[in-house]
Formats: sequence, structure tokens, C-alpha cells
Amino acid sequence: MSLAFISSPIDRKSLLRQSPDTIMQLRNDLESRLVRVHGDAALMNNGSLVLDHAGIGAEAVFLGQGPTGESWFATATASETGCVPIRSIMVDGLLDPSILSILAQARSVIGWHDRHGFCANCGGKTEMADSGYRRTCGQCAAEHFPRTDPVVIMAVKMGDQFLLGRQASWPPHMYSALAGFMEPGETIEQAVRREVMEETSIHTGRVSYVASQPWPFPSSLMIGMIAEAESEEIVIDHKELEAARWFPRSELELMLSGDHPDGLWASRPQAIAHTVLSAALKT
Amino acid sequence: MSLAFISSPIDRKSLLRQSPDTIMQLRNDLESRLVRVHGDAALMNNGSLVLDHAGIGAEAVFLGQGPTGESWFATATASETGCVPIRSIMVDGLLDPSILSILAQARSVIGWHDRHGFCANCGGKTEMADSGYRRTCGQCAAEHFPRTDPVVIMAVKMGDQFLLGRQASWPPHMYSALAGFMEPGETIEQAVRREVMEETSIHTGRVSYVASQPWPFPSSLMIGMIAEAESEEIVIDHKELEAARWFPRSELELMLSGDHPDGLWASRPQAIAHTVLSAALKT
Repeated sequence: MSLAFISSPIDRKSLLRQSPDTIMQLRNDLESRLVRVHGDAALMNNGSLVLDHAGIGAEAVFLGQGPTGESWFATATASETGCVPIRSIMVDGLLDPSILSILAQARSVIGWHDRHGFCANCGGKTEMADSGYRRTCGQCAAEHFPRTDPVVIMAVKMGDQFLLGRQASWPPHMYSALAGFMEPGETIEQAVRREVMEETSIHTGRVSYVASQPWPFPSSLMIGMIAEAESEEIVIDHKELEAARWFPRSELELMLSGDHPDGLWASRPQAIAHTVLSAALKT
Repeated sequence: MSLAFISSPIDRKSLLRQSPDTIMQLRNDLESRLVRVHGDAALMNNGSLVLDHAGIGAEAVFLGQGPTGESWFATATASETGCVPIRSIMVDGLLDPSILSILAQARSVIGWHDRHGFCANCGGKTEMADSGYRRTCGQCAAEHFPRTDPVVIMAVKMGDQFLLGRQASWPPHMYSALAGFMEPGETIEQAVRREVMEETSIHTGRVSYVASQPWPFPSSLMIGMIAEAESEEIVIDHKELEAARWFPRSELELMLSGDHPDGLWASRPQAIAHTVLSAALKT
């Protein structure tokens, strides 16, 4: 098990999106594959993703082409019958990491269409364009593009101590890296310091980049960072966190490997929290 | 002159956003300041930002508090009379960098309200909530949050050669780093490789992070990266670029310092392109 959603084999072929004739041919190509998503879930059958089709409709989004030149499309399916939550597919390793990564793209872009049938600017109806990468308003002609929400997620450390928090909604005994949505008008580094301050009142100084991960629930971009703490005393914002505390290096190591004597654990390897906490241990 | 929009002295005090009584008091506090924006421009008078007020309306967004505890709000102004483009304020250094950074936050969040009076989910009217950091739909109760669009911008290098492009709309003799909007379902590193491939057909391998910058036209997050090229032959996508070519190290140095004999130049110091190209020269 390792970081999920980062292994897509798809070449998005964005230039094709504006070639309706080519896309039409690909929609009718029996080698093309059609992913069906329903909310956070995808249609499976006998342990495999359902991909076959008898002609792919005009409402399906063009995802791109795979290693053998096969085209991939995605569509929303109205019924949840047979659909398996993408989180379960991830956690239980039900599909190959490359297929799971295609699902991330499919789920995010389909979810965007599901929630953007109307124009935020004028309230008019919008229609899909660019094979699924744009919506246009029939009333005011505004153009809308898929949304990706940057989230900072950070390992906060001071020497051999690491700051972890837990939200009330998480599974028992789980602690993880702090995180929060970025806001307009700030840098990644400022967002890290702001979120850590808001959630725990800890001051942080130096901030460095570790890695990134798309997180398709519904369409976040996780930006994994390490931040150096400059104060120690924690004051928890209980709207965000149920608990937060400093863990010594040896304890965090046991939490990441799943060997903690009290059953505490720190995120699954599929989540970038695990990556940033592991990276912080190496600094 | 250095990187713009990254020097905000504002503490956003996000916990106050849901305390309407406190925010109401601050709206009426004569020490509070009100920034007026009109599209990409801000209201100035005699070389200063207009900040005074006689009571700040309920439609104004709470930006946070400054170093002396003073509160900052932002509102849209209907008339463009007296408004100066924020780009001009930036390029001509008309205001202190800290004030310019507050303008980035003001312009992005006000621009979001301007374009989100309706619900993308159902077409109903939306209303401002959380002192400007949320809009809610009166019809379907959907919640909407300000949008921040991540953009990758990258110095592409191969040994002592650097790949720069130019868009047809840019000022004469300007070349810069390649850039493009991120899409749902990809990592920052994948987006860098995809955009470089789409625009120039150059393959890139190792990608590393340099810095980030909010870019309030209207609300991008610029993510500055360096990418190592693994191929040399450029094929330009003329929809995106007018030209692209390899520049030797010595020439890029002259372009960044403004000393190129043919007048070529590579971005202004206020833009993160300058930062990433300068960082790439040091690798």
C-alpha cells in the first residue's frame, strides 16, 4: 500500500477536447472504456470496474488515453446499485493503483458537473463544453472551469517532537497531520502557519514542501508540507479538533508502522498525511 | 521590487467570522478600514488607498486584523471613477508591499462574490455568510466557498539551457516560464509535466518546488517549480504560445537583470516566474 491517486497512466490529450469529430469517433470506438461514478462511488462487477459500453453518450467526459492508445470516458450513473465507495476501493486495495488514480479524475470531474448545472454568475442553465472540461452559460455566456481546491497538510515538528491532532469524526485511536483549505490571497507557507495557529495556537517558522496528492472527495489538491514550530503550548480550537498533542519521535514511528502498544495510529499509507509525517521523521 | 502579494500583515482571525455581534461592532469602529475594489482595480485618492468610512455595510467582507489590532474590510464599489488597476499599483510600486498584499485578498474574495450571486447547483439566489467566506443558497441550502485556482509555473532546464515561452498577448521582447491551470485528479508534479508536454512537447522528469504566490487576477495560487527536461526538440502548441526556445544560462541572466543587448526580458521581479527562473539559475 502506498500513496493513492498519484499513478494515473492517462495522457489527458487536452488538444483533442476541442475536436468534436475525433471525440465522437472515440465515443463510438468499442476499445474505449467508460467509468461510471455515483457520488463518491464507482460501478463495479465481480471485483472489476465496469468499463464496457455500447456507444458512449455525449454527456460523458473525455478523460484521455491510456498506454495502449485506448480512450477513457467517465459518466454519472443514476443508480447506486453495484457501486462501491472509492474510499473502500482505496483502503481495501480492490483495484490496481493505476485504475484507482483514473477514478480520482473521473469522480472529481463528474462531481463538478453534478453540482454545476447552473451559472453562479446569473442563475441560467449551463451546458458542457470541451468534452467535459468547461461549462458555458446559455444566458450570460459566462465560462466555468472545473474546480480544484488546494488544501495544506503539514507535519509540525520541534526537535524530536511532532504535533498531531484528531478530529472527533475520525476512527478511534487515529491522530494525524493538521490540514485546512487555502484561502484567496495567501501563499502556501502562509496558509500552513495560519491553519496551525488557528487549530492549536502554535507559532511556526520555516515551512518546506514534501509532496502533493489529488484527493477526490470531491476535488481537493493536498499540498504536503513540514513546518518548524516556534512555540510549544497548545490551545485547541474545539470546532476543528477534538485533541492535539506532541508525540515523541519513537512514538510517531510506532504509530506510522501500526505497532503502537496502545493502538494509536497516524493515517493510512494511502493518505499524504502518512507521507509528510514519514518525511518529517527523516529531517 | 520583489515578489508581490506575499507580504500581508493581516491576521485573518477566522474564528471571528462566525461572531456576528463582534463583527458588527468592528463594522462601526472608526479605526476599521474599508478597501473598495472595482474588478481588477482599487479606489485611490492622492496616491493613497481610500480606507475611511462612515460605518461599514453588512455586505463588506471581513479581511482580518492588522498589526495594531485594526480591522480591515473590503467591498465592491460600483463606479470605476478614481480606481487604479492593481497591476499598475504593483508594477509602478504605488503602494507599500504590505498594502498591495491586502489588496490581493480583497480583490480575490470580492471578485468571487461578484460572480457567485447564484447557486451553481440549483440556480437559486445565494447570500453571503461567515462575514464573506461562505455563500449559502436560499433554495437548496448548498454551501459555496471562495475559489482558489492552483496554477503550476515552471522553469524547465537541461544543463545550462532554459526553456522559455511567450504568449502572443505579452509585451514585446518578453519571454517567461511556462504555466497552466491544474486539473482535477493530478499531482502538482504531473501537472508540470503535462503542461510542458502540451505546450512544447518537451519531456520532463524530476520536478522540485521553489515557492508560491497568490495572484489575484482573479484568484490563482501560483505554484513555482523547477523541472528537468529529458528531451530537447520543441514543438509549439500555437493555441497557447507564440514562441518557445532554449536560452543559455548567460542570456537568461541578462534577461532577468534587464541587461539583454536585444532588449529581451524574462518577467518582472513582482511575478513568481522571476523567482523560479532565478532559482533555476542557481541549480
